[in-house]
Amino acid sequence: MKTINVELGDRSYPIYIGQKLLSDKSIIKKHVTSKQVLIITNEVIAPYYLDLLLSNLSDKQVETLILPDGEKTKSLEHLNIIISRLLKNKFSRTCTLIALGGGVVGDLTGFAAACYQRGVKFIQVPTTLLAQVDSSVGGKTAVNHPLGKNMIGAFYQPISVIADTSVISTLPGRELSAGLAEVIKYGLIRDKKFFEWLQKNISKLINRDEAALAYAIERSCINKAEVVAEDETESGVRAILNLGHTFGHAIETALEYKEWLHGEAIGCGLLMAADLSYRLGYLNEATVATIESILMEAGLPVKNHPRVTMQKMLENMKVDKKAKDGVLYFILLESIGKAVITADIKTEMLEETINKYLSRG
Amino acid sequence: MKTINVELGDRSYPIYIGQKLLSDKSIIKKHVTSKQVLIITNEVIAPYYLDLLLSNLSDKQVETLILPDGEKTKSLEHLNIIISRLLKNKFSRTCTLIALGGGVVGDLTGFAAACYQRGVKFIQVPTTLLAQVDSSVGGKTAVNHPLGKNMIGAFYQPISVIADTSVISTLPGRELSAGLAEVIKYGLIRDKKFFEWLQKNISKLINRDEAALAYAIERSCINKAEVVAEDETESGVRAILNLGHTFGHAIETALEYKEWLHGEAIGCGLLMAADLSYRLGYLNEATVATIESILMEAGLPVKNHPRVTMQKMLENMKVDKKAKDGVLYFILLESIGKAVITADIKTEMLEETINKYLSRG
Repeated sequence: MKTINVELGDRSYPIYIGQKLLSDKSIIKKHVTSKQVLIITNEVIAPYYLDLLLSNLSDKQVETLILPDGEKTKSLEHLNIIISRLLKNKFSRTCTLIALGGGVVGDLTGFAAACYQRGVKFIQVPTTLLAQVDSSVGGKTAVNHPLGKNMIGAFYQPISVIADTSVISTLPGRELSAGLAEVIKYGLIRDKKFFEWLQKNISKLINRDEAALAYAIERSCINKAEVVAEDETESGVRAILNLGHTFGHAIETALEYKEWLHGEAIGCGLLMAADLSYRLGYLNEATVATIESILMEAGLPVKNHPRVTMQKMLENMKVDKKAKDGVLYFILLESIGKAVITADIKTEMLEETINKYLSRG
Repeated sequence: MKTINVELGDRSYPIYIGQKLLSDKSIIKKHVTSKQVLIITNEVIAPYYLDLLLSNLSDKQVETLILPDGEKTKSLEHLNIIISRLLKNKFSRTCTLIALGGGVVGDLTGFAAACYQRGVKFIQVPTTLLAQVDSSVGGKTAVNHPLGKNMIGAFYQPISVIADTSVISTLPGRELSAGLAEVIKYGLIRDKKFFEWLQKNISKLINRDEAALAYAIERSCINKAEVVAEDETESGVRAILNLGHTFGHAIETALEYKEWLHGEAIGCGLLMAADLSYRLGYLNEATVATIESILMEAGLPVKNHPRVTMQKMLENMKVDKKAKDGVLYFILLESIGKAVITADIKTEMLEETINKYLSRG
């Protein structure tokens, strides 16, 4: 087992990475110090891992809430369902919430923990590759609004993250690829050596080689933890973690959070960010092709969804959280391993990029 | 004009207290540095002060949202209305929200600011005595849930508080009394000299003597700022600010946030806390009578609302935010000017106190 610390002063916490961690009673018991515990999970994950988690908490007052699968669950309505359950069971401010699931469960549970009685403890038990390498780490919690993704949320840190690599064995192939989009992102934004390792090992990852997966998760978490420690609330450098996300979120909103997984939209978004970087003269065509190639090998889309239009893309990008007083900011690449934050991208250039990937639809 | 600083490191902010501050363009302009501004107010306050505030922001992109008056507005539904308005107008993360109103508008706006895109700036312009001396200061933001008051919220500080004492002139009498409940509370929990001053000057305050009001607001804000600086997230001493609130919130919940103003419920709650302190041997009967007397002079209820039952009181108190793993904590008085946090109050004793004030109904 590897332990990575996210260094945030009195909000610091450990990420545990290793095989069969869910079967290890000692880790969860170390962090659940309250009597009252609510486990939030979904209908897909519950049959696999809920009983295992429950068996480690037999001496607690445990409630479980099994929510529908999918991005639609990240809503104010489901937040209200969680709060109601907590209140009906008279859960006090010392209780602990556990998120057992992917990014949707983690983001929703984290936001519920941030809000309930102005803040209670929560633990992330991510069960998808994407959640293990990205959404469970760093304290970004949120629900969606019909007009924009993650528009209602909080920066709120868990007290620990338990990333059991054995759960990847039950992950559907599309979910594995979606997770790899964020893994590739870390290489692109700040870790050239890791990107080169990924180029050599991408087929091992797709074939779920446990040692390769463990290394990829570890490198991803180390990269994320370093960025978050530097800038917890995204006032500066943390924005680089959003490479491809301005495009990706616009795609997801256009598809009403259906059809594509978050990581799939980000995969396509990474390529669009690379293309825009090329149009600005940062990257050469060969590098864009290298990025397209690794995304394809990872099983990610390299063209936009046929239902997404130019108009929808432009409209949805305007409410991006990185916009400041109406000016849109983009995270782009100066080279592989070096991200840059840019403003004032010309609309024509942006349209060229969007159009290039639309036209293949 | 007096300026009191709430000392919270990089979240520190000033409270301005004085006459006709709403007519002073320089204060608001100093703090609103963004182009996009949303003013949130209600239908009662808007006719009095909205135009005045708007005239000071003529060079900004200002949206206004006028909500219904009353505690029912502090809901997830109204949070969603605010978020929708922000998104429809493409407000970015650099925007500023201004709460123009009493505690309901302030708590709701503050929570919206805490959540929108994970946090935007907000300014409190409290227009009731209660909001000026209590709810606008200290960063407690929240909305209600049908099963409990302030159950969904955040600790989130404003960037400034502008307390214009001239607005008290248009305040209904009941609202003035409600504000005095919190003013009296500061004397009771930590400022004996101020309590003695209040005993001598309570009729001046009821008669809206401007100098007396300004002094009472200033002493209240100083007391609150000192407590909040010591314990921002209520892990310890800040709990003393909740004297009377466990009872008061139970009353409000029983009345479904109707009939009584928050401060009226707190007025009655202060007396019940004093009575329970007497039953535990902390206060003598004469002191309880002194407290009852000043509450009566302030125009506050000294018996529970006739619609509230023993059962409702006990039930509602169980989900109090001060409960820890099922044990109920009470803020009580050791003497006037000295609050104490206690646990494990015997249910019979609690029932005696509740019963005493019910029986007068």
